[in-house]
Amino acid sequence: MPNIKMILEYDGTRFHGWQKQPGLKTVQGELHKALELVLREPIKEVIASGRTDAGVHAKGQVANFHTISHPDLDRLQRSVSSILKGELSVVQVEIVSDEFHSRYCAAAKEYRYTILNRYVPAVLDWNRAWLVSAKLDEDAMRQFALSLCGTRDFACFQASGCEARSTIKTIYKSEIKREDDYLIYTVIGSGFLKQMVRNIVGTLVEIGRGSSKIPPIESLLNSRNRQLAGITAPAYGLMLHQVFYEEI
Amino acid sequence: MPNIKMILEYDGTRFHGWQKQPGLKTVQGELHKALELVLREPIKEVIASGRTDAGVHAKGQVANFHTISHPDLDRLQRSVSSILKGELSVVQVEIVSDEFHSRYCAAAKEYRYTILNRYVPAVLDWNRAWLVSAKLDEDAMRQFALSLCGTRDFACFQASGCEARSTIKTIYKSEIKREDDYLIYTVIGSGFLKQMVRNIVGTLVEIGRGSSKIPPIESLLNSRNRQLAGITAPAYGLMLHQVFYEEI
Repeated sequence: MPNIKMILEYDGTRFHGWQKQPGLKTVQGELHKALELVLREPIKEVIASGRTDAGVHAKGQVANFHTISHPDLDRLQRSVSSILKGELSVVQVEIVSDEFHSRYCAAAKEYRYTILNRYVPAVLDWNRAWLVSAKLDEDAMRQFALSLCGTRDFACFQASGCEARSTIKTIYKSEIKREDDYLIYTVIGSGFLKQMVRNIVGTLVEIGRGSSKIPPIESLLNSRNRQLAGITAPAYGLMLHQVFYEEI
Repeated sequence: MPNIKMILEYDGTRFHGWQKQPGLKTVQGELHKALELVLREPIKEVIASGRTDAGVHAKGQVANFHTISHPDLDRLQRSVSSILKGELSVVQVEIVSDEFHSRYCAAAKEYRYTILNRYVPAVLDWNRAWLVSAKLDEDAMRQFALSLCGTRDFACFQASGCEARSTIKTIYKSEIKREDDYLIYTVIGSGFLKQMVRNIVGTLVEIGRGSSKIPPIESLLNSRNRQLAGITAPAYGLMLHQVFYEEI
């Protein structure tokens, strides 16, 4: 049973998140249907590196599934991308070892969040950027972002209903860069709790706005209290940029 | 009569080009209506640095118009952007000297053209990039792009029906950069003939594909023959990035 690994790009606003749900158009559901259509065989499950929420985009989501036959990979890539044209593209596809599992083998993930910091709505980045019109204290935001690096308990950034066994994660990179009117937040971590990046970005923006409600970083992390962190930034500004794997 | 200068961002796929046309939704037409609605006075004409074709985007189109009253610029910017939400935003607005004319005073313009060089369709850059699946000889493309710099007769890149008085223009910058699967062509010139950038890009792609049909650059320019240059690249990959003015 060949194990097929795919790199996926998708527009999150076209789907109700990753996970299959009856009656809703989801990435997993549409991809499953397209794969079965192209391969003409039943597929057990398409496994992703992690679920993305409704509205969250992916440039480098990784998913894998097992097949009975040896498919023509070029045809698979082009046909699936053609069925889901403009909504999802299979950017890369390869046969990997049997042990490879998109979720369990993921060593780290990189997310990017785009804030558009001006008065007027996004046009060319409509549905790709969060419009924040307030003047932002970027130095304070940068300092807070940087202070998230390391192995910490990120429970304060965890949405309710999160099934994670542990709230302790390692963040390797957490930084903000300005490009004209855009602020791009890049975060690389061993793993992320439910809505963790969006809650971090919401907190960053509150700090940037000069809010005195957010406690200093150490108190905030120690509190493990979601109520003390900032708002949840909208999903459409977030993109799963890349998933890292150790060679196996 | 205050002279108002605006910097505009718009999604070219939402409009039938810049110029007002009866019964069609155009940038000039929609902007005119929105401005009259907000200012509550008749406006003679909204003048742009140049017309953009249907489908061509703008990040930094410049336009100006004259008013009778002294408008609240903040309100003007936000109201017009709100009326045309997600299709056009007034990124900047200011009162300029009476002599300023968006078209006649433009010293140079910068266009960018985005090529997506992979097999599968664009997703996150749908309607913003031209999908070219062929393997491209980037060195040959770079060399051709660079050789366009200087003051030359660009008649061979001119679409029929062009009203330009002279086909002699100066190109200051013409270069291709690769970013992952993207090839970004940036061109800065004193002015551009009708579809000139799209015709240059089409020619670049034919050269990249190894076509032997395109004559060497000097013969091509000397021929002044549109038939000898390449195809016209699609409009949706093109963006008017910036317009340059000398201080007046």
